[in-house]
Order: sequence, then C-alpha cells, then structure tokens
Amino acid sequence: MKQLLIYALVAFLVGFPFFECFPQTRSSKDTASAMLKEGMIKLQAYEMLSELTAIGSRLSGSENYEKAVKWAKAKMISLGFENVRLNPAQIPHWVRGKTEFAEAASRSGKKLPLTICALGGSIPTAANGITADVVEIHSFDELKKPGIAKGKIVFFNRPMDPARLNTFDAYGDASEQRTKGPSQAAAAGAVAAIVRSMTLTHDDVPHTGSLMYDEKLPKIPAAAVSTNDADALSAFLKDGPPVRITLKLDCQQLPDVASASVIGEIRGSQFPDEIILVGGHLDSWDLGTGAHDDGAGCAHTLEALSIIKRLGLQPKRTIRAVLFANEENGLKGARAYTDSEAKIGKHIACIETDAGGFTPRGFTVTDPVALAKIQKWSALFALAGAGEVTSGNPGADLLYLAKLGIPAIGFRPDSQRYFDYHHSTHDTLDKVHPRELELGAVAIAIMAYQLSENGL
Amino acid sequence: MKQLLIYALVAFLVGFPFFECFPQTRSSKDTASAMLKEGMIKLQAYEMLSELTAIGSRLSGSENYEKAVKWAKAKMISLGFENVRLNPAQIPHWVRGKTEFAEAASRSGKKLPLTICALGGSIPTAANGITADVVEIHSFDELKKPGIAKGKIVFFNRPMDPARLNTFDAYGDASEQRTKGPSQAAAAGAVAAIVRSMTLTHDDVPHTGSLMYDEKLPKIPAAAVSTNDADALSAFLKDGPPVRITLKLDCQQLPDVASASVIGEIRGSQFPDEIILVGGHLDSWDLGTGAHDDGAGCAHTLEALSIIKRLGLQPKRTIRAVLFANEENGLKGARAYTDSEAKIGKHIACIETDAGGFTPRGFTVTDPVALAKIQKWSALFALAGAGEVTSGNPGADLLYLAKLGIPAIGFRPDSQRYFDYHHSTHDTLDKVHPRELELGAVAIAIMAYQLSENGL
Repeated sequence: MKQLLIYALVAFLVGFPFFECFPQTRSSKDTASAMLKEGMIKLQAYEMLSELTAIGSRLSGSENYEKAVKWAKAKMISLGFENVRLNPAQIPHWVRGKTEFAEAASRSGKKLPLTICALGGSIPTAANGITADVVEIHSFDELKKPGIAKGKIVFFNRPMDPARLNTFDAYGDASEQRTKGPSQAAAAGAVAAIVRSMTLTHDDVPHTGSLMYDEKLPKIPAAAVSTNDADALSAFLKDGPPVRITLKLDCQQLPDVASASVIGEIRGSQFPDEIILVGGHLDSWDLGTGAHDDGAGCAHTLEALSIIKRLGLQPKRTIRAVLFANEENGLKGARAYTDSEAKIGKHIACIETDAGGFTPRGFTVTDPVALAKIQKWSALFALAGAGEVTSGNPGADLLYLAKLGIPAIGFRPDSQRYFDYHHSTHDTLDKVHPRELELGAVAIAIMAYQLSENGL
Repeated sequence: MKQLLIYALVAFLVGFPFFECFPQTRSSKDTASAMLKEGMIKLQAYEMLSELTAIGSRLSGSENYEKAVKWAKAKMISLGFENVRLNPAQIPHWVRGKTEFAEAASRSGKKLPLTICALGGSIPTAANGITADVVEIHSFDELKKPGIAKGKIVFFNRPMDPARLNTFDAYGDASEQRTKGPSQAAAAGAVAAIVRSMTLTHDDVPHTGSLMYDEKLPKIPAAAVSTNDADALSAFLKDGPPVRITLKLDCQQLPDVASASVIGEIRGSQFPDEIILVGGHLDSWDLGTGAHDDGAGCAHTLEALSIIKRLGLQPKRTIRAVLFANEENGLKGARAYTDSEAKIGKHIACIETDAGGFTPRGFTVTDPVALAKIQKWSALFALAGAGEVTSGNPGADLLYLAKLGIPAIGFRPDSQRYFDYHHSTHDTLDKVHPRELELGAVAIAIMAYQLSENGL
C-alpha cells in the first residue's frame, strides 16, 4: 500500500504541471501533434529561409530589402494567405561605404592592424581619417574621470559575461557600450569610439549593430572591433602606452526611403476582427545574410501560418503574419504598423520571433494574466520542445504594441550560439539547422492557433 | 483585491514547481551558481575534448584506444583526482579493412555506385565480393513472405521518423534494422544486408554502428549506405527491377585485446564508501573522432569532477569518474566494471552522459522514488539549462548497474543535431559548441554534488 502511494505520488509529480493540473482537450493535443508531424516531415521553413537568404543581406533602404519585400508578398500569396498587402513605412538609408580601416601604433613604431566595421548609423571620419590616442574603458563611470577621454579615441572593451546562461542577458548588459557608448564618449570629449564586438566567441570578424546618438551631443564616428583584435589591442596598450589609433570610415546617412512591412492573414472564421499577430523582421544588417537575425523569424512566421493552412484548420480569430521593416536601425516598420493597424483591428495578442532559429525552449509573456493562461498550455508547446513559459519581454518590434497594453509574447529558442553569428558575416544559412528551425515554426503555430481558438 | 489575488496566483504559477514547492537551501543554489560561473568562464571541457579528439578515432582494440586510456589516466592525475586506476576488460578487436565497395546494376546495364561502410562486427565478403539481386524491405514482417529474400541482398530502407521530437526515439524505432536486420535477413535466406544509415539528414556519408548476429543463424556481411544513396537506390529499384548489387568488404574480427576502463575519484569526506558514479565511454567508432559520441561524455565527466575540485568542495560521498571501455561494440568495459567494482563500494546513484555535447535539456531517471527526489532539485539543474527531469533510461553503460537496482540517471542534451554526426566521419570537434558542452559538465557537476550531499 505504501508503495502504491509512492507510485501515485511519483506519477503525480512526473505528470505535473502539464497534464494533471491543466488538462488539455483531446483536440488541442491532436492538433498540436498534427502540426508537429506536418512541419517535421516537410521542413518547409528551411526552404523559405533558403530563398530569403539567397537575396543576400537586407539592410533598410537597400535594393535587397525591396527585393525581400517583393519576395515576401509573393510568398504569402503563393501560400494562400489572405489580405496580403504592404504596410508603408519611411525607413532610414544608411550605407557602410568602402573604407573601413583602423590601425593602432605605439610611439616606438610598433603597429597593430584592427579588423573593424562601422557601427550602423555612424557618421564617417574625414577622408584622411582620425588619428588620436586611445583609452581603454570598461564602464561609463570611468568616463567621469576628468580629462580621461578628452581628444582621444575611446575603446570600450567590457566583454559579454560568459556566466549568464541566457546569452541575451549578457548582451543586454554589454550592448550599452555600442548603443550609448559613442555619445557617452563624446560627452567626455572623445573624437571617436571603438567598441568590442558583442559576441561571446573569440573570433576575427567585427559584429555591427546600431548606435543611438544623443542629439544633444556631438556625433563622433564609431566602429566595432573583432573580439580577437579587441584582446590584441588591450594587450598592445598594456605593452606600453600611449598608443594612437588611426580610424577611417566613409559610411553615410542618405535620405529616408519609402518602403514597407509585409502583411498576410488567415481570416478568423468567428471573430475576424480579433487579431493574433505573428511576426519577425524582414530587414537585416548588411553583413552576412541575416539568416538567424531575423530570416529565421520570417521563416517561422510564414511556416507557422502555412502549417495551419495546410492542415485545413479554420481559426476562430484572424492569425496575421507581419514581416516588419527596419527593426535593426529605427523600428520605423513597427512604428508605422502600430500607428495604422492597431486602430483598425483588435489585437488580442502578438507573438514575436527575433531570437534566432535554434532549438526551441519556450516563450516569454509580458502580461501576468496572459502568462498564467498561456502557461496552462505548456504541454502543447512542449510537443515542439518549447514548454518553458516565463515572464519576459519580446523583441523590439512589439514595443509599441505592448505599450498599448496588448499582451506580447516572445518565442525563445536556445541562445547559446546566437551571438556567435549575430550582426556579422557569419550569420548565414549554413548556421541554421532545418529541424531546429521547423520546430520553432511548429511551436509558434501551436501558440497562434491556441490563442485564436481561446482568446486571452 | 481581485487583482491582488490574480497576481498572487500568477506569482504562484510562475514560480511553480521550482521554487515554491521545493525550496532549495541557499547554499545549494550558491554552489550551483558558483559551478556555472567556474565552468562558463574557463570552458575547460572543450579543451579536454580537443585533446582527446586529437588522438583520432578510438575503436576498441585499436592503438588509438590505448592512447586514449593513457591520456585519460594522465588527465585524471593532472586534475588531482584520487585513486586513479585502470579497470581491466577484455575487449573485441574488429577492423574495417580497406575494401568497402558496393554498386547496383540493372539488367539493362545502368549502374549506381553506392557509398557504404561495413557495419561494426560484420564478417567480410569473399575477396571477389557477393553479387545478388536486391530486395527493398521496410519491416521485418515483410521478410516473412516466402522466398522474398532467398539468395538476395536485403536492403533495409525504413527511414528514422522525422516527426519524433526526441531523435533518440526515432533512432530507437529504426535501429533494429541495423542491429537485428542482418540476422533477420539471414533467417529469410539472404546472402548480405545493406542498411539505410541511421540519420535524419540527407547526406553522403554512411553511418556505421554495431550489428548483433544471432549465433543460431548464418552470419552474412552487412553494410550501411548513405541516406542519399539509399534514396537513389530506392528510385533505381522503382525504375526497373530486378537490380543486382555487388558488395565487397574485407573487415575482420581479430582476437580480443586486454584493455581497460579508466577510473578516478574525489573521495567522500563523510561516506567514502558510498559512490556517486559519473561516466561516459572512452571508445568511439572508427569513423570521425567520436567528438559527440562519446568524447563529449568523457569531457563532461572529467570537467564535472574538475569543477567540484576547483571550487574546493569536499563532497560527503565519493564522486567517481568512470570512462568505460567498449560501449560501441560489446559493453565489455561496463560488464567488467560491474563485475569487479559493484561488489566493493556501495553505488548510491550512477550518472551517464552518452547523448552528445549539445545544449542541456535535463536528465532522465530510471527509479521512480529517485526520480521524485531528484525532481525537487530541478531549479538547480535549470541554472545550467537542464531543468527537465523525467522518467527514462540512461545509455548502455549503466545497463548492468541498473539491473542491480542502482538508480541510473541519463544526462539529456538537445537531440536535434545528434544523428547528423553519429557514427560517421562527421562526428568531429568542430560540431561541438564550447558553451553547450560546458553547460553539460556544469549540469552534471550540480547533479553529482547534490547526490553526494543528500544521497538518494
């Protein structure tokens, strides 16, 4: 008897919290299982990503971005989505230029070439470059020391913290050096900034990303340096300062461009005006082909809706795919979408996938009430490996919608490899695993369909 | 008030089951966090794996396997393990030979070369090979049809099921074709067997693995064919049977070799005779360098104990690393260890890591009472991404110990990529991610230390 009780307890604990406390209707589980099967046998997300990345990089304002818009619209139509349309947005047009040069030199004549790239949005240097002494900085507090950066090039060299399990947390801690560092350096009188690449690997490619100039401060040119060269530069500085760096960049900010996000839907059979949004961003940085960031999110989005259609499901609420313009350097697509579309349909929930195409772990949810409801469905997401549902913010494209009080859900794949490739020439199709990518699409299909059937 | 209640409910659900129901002592969490930090900053598991795979493949009976034994012993000593010693085992010595040839030919003269490799343990063909008609088979039931395989080469071509989330489940379903297929074919009168490689990818390399001849039946030569060539052969057969295949193999079974598993320990401070075993297998197939299978498990094992030592922890019970000989084709190391060591110390629990070096998901536990206890520690493992603790079997090396009633725990990393590389030339160091590998070592260190402090 005692043994029986123990077994009953064990069965309870094993099954908890998925099955005992929150029983699923048989049909939800069957539907989710059918989605898994449909997705994993055909692996169409990878095919779509392959087409998208074949276009190349897709920076806002570029010809390639416009090609991606055309591709996405045609793809949505060919997949049988309804109301396929463009959502207009004025987007920035920054171009890298051809000159990206940096070299450190000691007073004794020793030289150290540095592999760099301009940060997105950086102003150029003068044609003959900037040459100045360099100072290595690890926190903005250090810049408060009087005169420390005056007339110098500030080298921000605080690495991402390898001890954080979620690499996005490590990125969140370190990336202020890139986003705010240039203006912080300018406030301290610096003439340029060089920032350690935001990656946990030790590699030889610079990882770009946007900077955010403080309009009240002088704009100074800013570049990312590869982590290996950041380490080398740090050693070079220890070897015998002062060291001067010469930096040349000819990037440019061109006039804004009329462009668009891309929208397509499966119309709701009962509540067509209630919208479950699923989205990623169609633009990418100009290095690599944005396979993980955020081609994967585009493929997830298209395939999630396609799975629902292929199974002949008719969701009660409208499931809408949105491939946002200009996430990387302006959020103009998200802004324009929110300004135009949030007034028309009633957004019940929004799902964003902008964390790569790796094996699924779960979802984050902003709103605590929505979180409690969605956690009851964990067993369904767990069928695709995405059973971890926790509190948290999604990516940037849902920022404005979340501010309106709409529950925002972030898809969370495993994060260990993401920053190896992020914003660099390494972010290419070969880094994406077809099964891992597809599992993400399946998890998102399950989430979107559950939301469409049950609301929030 | 209602809102407050809702928030309280949400807080409960968010926190459950990890924190509310099963509070951890502060020190367990601090210790686990310290292990994470120690591991992730230094990433020493990858360094060890790099040294081990530099030896090359490590098939039982080979010179390389003996080099690996020497390396492992020296490494344990250099890491400061105690009681480092060899556990003798007589292990098989099968060698692949130089001739691995297969070609299909239609009666009309069309030819199709096939990329194959001998299955581990296969007998050779005659020097001039075997030529016979081929019959494609998807289940053993089909072999019951009278005469279907008589005098033929049986081509087992049932793919692994891509719809299974856990690829080990798909492997479990399909791998009987490789392990039992040759004897099943022989029972039906076949002269040889060719088996579709056990992988979910479509690739051009054959994936080997052991076959298990039924001693009561004639032994026939057997080879694995790459999945791409399996698909091509299937199409070739549909194109116009009958098709003949010529197969040549000169593999050989040599006399058994005196070899060993490698053991090292951190002696328990309070209960030194109570043992928490942590282990993987030191041997590998002769294709690739066994980086995931099971170099990763060796690196996990060595690094898990090393982390505990580096933090200066003194476990109450003995934590013992065992790198088993001959998992791949005989389990002679596991057999010899169980026969000799299980009688001496009291094994409280055994942890096996033989599922690759990918990002951790959790652990499986055989024993329901142990499972219930270990699930209470989930929050600790979740610090390394390994929070999913479920019922299940470990790998083969713990088979004999589990039969003695010792609770057996399997480390479970993500399985999506494992069979892309498994038992093929693709299983090399570059497929292992340093952070993912280290997280596994950290998760295992946390598990081993918890067991050493709390028993079971």
